[in-house]
Amino acid sequence: MRTTVGIIGAGPAGLLLARLLHDAGIESVVLESRDRAYVEQRQRAGILEQGTVDVLRAAGAGERMDREGLRHDGIELRFGGKRHRVDFPALTGGKSVMVYAQTEVCKDLIALRLKDGGPLLFEAEALAVEGAEGDRPRVRFRHQGAEEVLECDWVVGCDGFRGVARRAIPASVSRGFERTYPFGWLGILADVPPSHDELVYARHDRGFALLSMRPPVARHHPSEEVASLPVRSFVSRLYLQVPAGTDAGSWSDEAIWDELERRFETDDDWRLERGPITQKSVTPMRSYVHEPMRHGRLLLAGDAAHIVPPTGAKGLNLAVGDAVTLARALVHLRDTGSAGLLDTYSATCLRRVWQAERFSYDMTTLLHRAPDATPFDDRLQLARLERITASRAAETDLAEAYTGFPLV
Amino acid sequence: MRTTVGIIGAGPAGLLLARLLHDAGIESVVLESRDRAYVEQRQRAGILEQGTVDVLRAAGAGERMDREGLRHDGIELRFGGKRHRVDFPALTGGKSVMVYAQTEVCKDLIALRLKDGGPLLFEAEALAVEGAEGDRPRVRFRHQGAEEVLECDWVVGCDGFRGVARRAIPASVSRGFERTYPFGWLGILADVPPSHDELVYARHDRGFALLSMRPPVARHHPSEEVASLPVRSFVSRLYLQVPAGTDAGSWSDEAIWDELERRFETDDDWRLERGPITQKSVTPMRSYVHEPMRHGRLLLAGDAAHIVPPTGAKGLNLAVGDAVTLARALVHLRDTGSAGLLDTYSATCLRRVWQAERFSYDMTTLLHRAPDATPFDDRLQLARLERITASRAAETDLAEAYTGFPLV
Repeated sequence: MRTTVGIIGAGPAGLLLARLLHDAGIESVVLESRDRAYVEQRQRAGILEQGTVDVLRAAGAGERMDREGLRHDGIELRFGGKRHRVDFPALTGGKSVMVYAQTEVCKDLIALRLKDGGPLLFEAEALAVEGAEGDRPRVRFRHQGAEEVLECDWVVGCDGFRGVARRAIPASVSRGFERTYPFGWLGILADVPPSHDELVYARHDRGFALLSMRPPVARHHPSEEVASLPVRSFVSRLYLQVPAGTDAGSWSDEAIWDELERRFETDDDWRLERGPITQKSVTPMRSYVHEPMRHGRLLLAGDAAHIVPPTGAKGLNLAVGDAVTLARALVHLRDTGSAGLLDTYSATCLRRVWQAERFSYDMTTLLHRAPDATPFDDRLQLARLERITASRAAETDLAEAYTGFPLV
Repeated sequence: MRTTVGIIGAGPAGLLLARLLHDAGIESVVLESRDRAYVEQRQRAGILEQGTVDVLRAAGAGERMDREGLRHDGIELRFGGKRHRVDFPALTGGKSVMVYAQTEVCKDLIALRLKDGGPLLFEAEALAVEGAEGDRPRVRFRHQGAEEVLECDWVVGCDGFRGVARRAIPASVSRGFERTYPFGWLGILADVPPSHDELVYARHDRGFALLSMRPPVARHHPSEEVASLPVRSFVSRLYLQVPAGTDAGSWSDEAIWDELERRFETDDDWRLERGPITQKSVTPMRSYVHEPMRHGRLLLAGDAAHIVPPTGAKGLNLAVGDAVTLARALVHLRDTGSAGLLDTYSATCLRRVWQAERFSYDMTTLLHRAPDATPFDDRLQLARLERITASRAAETDLAEAYTGFPLV
């Protein structure tokens, strides 16, 4: 099999890149190791920066997002019995974010890709990237029981943190930057309308808690099969900081709700509505950056190159930024013969990536309680939160980073 | 001996408080364990916030400061071969700082105190504060070989981090918040004009460096005794991050200049002028806060209650803030009979103190290289510095904190 751009991984980076290349008339093949149902169901982030929203719209993937997504103009911070709203448009000159789950973005992009005529191969497991340093890089992959080879001009690794693409870059030119955190997030989906209409980030001596949501999506009632009217339901997405390595099963539903109430410091003015918990899982927290993001004719995008803890809601947005930067570089090469933008791809992306890493780290340490936190650390955390509520400059710094850094 | 307010320590907090009380007609006695020459020579901080400048002027201690001090409208950050100036007035609506050494502030306040008629007892070593919980607190002290007692309505401990005042607060009501740093500052005074007209804060892989200065002061040429014309000389004050516990004597003058050049990344555009090093010492770095700052009729002010690492230049300014807040509270009591402001003294000061602690910690970790810094930490530091240069909000946040938080 032969194509111009071989894309490993049908997450947001790979799917968006394929779409942008298709729009520009550049051929690509997307290989995805999982099946379609899996890809369309895995729960990930759900906050789209203003720039990400604009890109998806421009790529023709904005129709359902604009219909079902929720524009959010702020977040609430809770700490020490106080509540403070950060007003994004007022602080950033009109920017906001969109609550729309990554899994829905993927569904929309898969539908587009299939309408575009593919190729998008599910259950096509990349085994290795070869020849990145030469003119004809290849992806060896397994599909329908047979081993095959995809020959390309360029290979793009969008295959996530544990994918094979990054491993094709020799250790001698690779640098990995990593930080792990001694805690994770216990995340739940609950069939109950969210108790607040914006995200609530709570800092508590017992640990961090986050109230988020999934917008109402059209779905069919399970008992009525195909012809039913769609039932629109609003789902709560809630998180608790837990020690790293926690087993989600060790938390009963009641214990989760009780702990959420404590950390949100609910009172007569604000109650947390409970409902059936439909999903429960623990996400580890990690910061990771691989430099460089290009080696020869192999390029990395999204989680294959960098991981952020979810506190800053930056993972998906970074993947989109990489895809846009890369598509622009490949189109520039096709149109002008110049590889200039490909040569600067890594440095261009890394500037944005490190800002997102910084912000994600800061939001994480601002709100989580480390197991070895000293009383001094606790006071420092509260002083930081007080500063955000007291200084328009500090608050603007947060709002700018949350709503997104420039894509290029 | 009997007075209204017994003040332990003739540093900036104690001396300013005595002056403010005198202006309001409230009697006080200042006890200082050292002799006058020592107090007037010890080298400390040298950056006065806008609010501190205003307070000293209003207290009648601004005349020489306004003549000899240097108004600075910005600082320079250097990192990764880049230079970035932070323009204070542009970012803060006109605020600036004043370069004028703490030791000169003390000289001016001592002169005022003696003109006011004292009492200011040098070589009067406070031994203990007693009876803080009752109506008649006392300071036991040793003076001219004899042990004496100073009976007061209020005792104020301005006797620094290692003073006796804080120890009079029972452990059962005390909380200490502390952080030590695995590095210190090797500071030098050099008889050479400073190589830059504003402070230069340098972040380098080899560690932090700071270029500062002492303003030209009128002084007599050593060879000509009393009747000589004053020679006005401009002195460089320079610092190098060194491992905690470093012996200043282990650094030769040449090694110091060589290391400063490396960390400032001097080049053809900017050279570091060398000169005779007249003083060399190592300062440890520590963050410390004692809560509360009041116990009964004993109040703490300045370093007796809180220590900051010098990176944010906040120590002297916090002392001034405490003295102003306390003077206001004591005058309020005298004028209205209400102890309301004394009751909130601790909480009022601690809000400002914790903001200064936060800023000092952030400036320290922004610019110093920890011995256990990972490559991730290094990149994060550079991303923070890049953010300050790229975002007016982030830069304003820094400029606001550097030029000073509101005094009350």
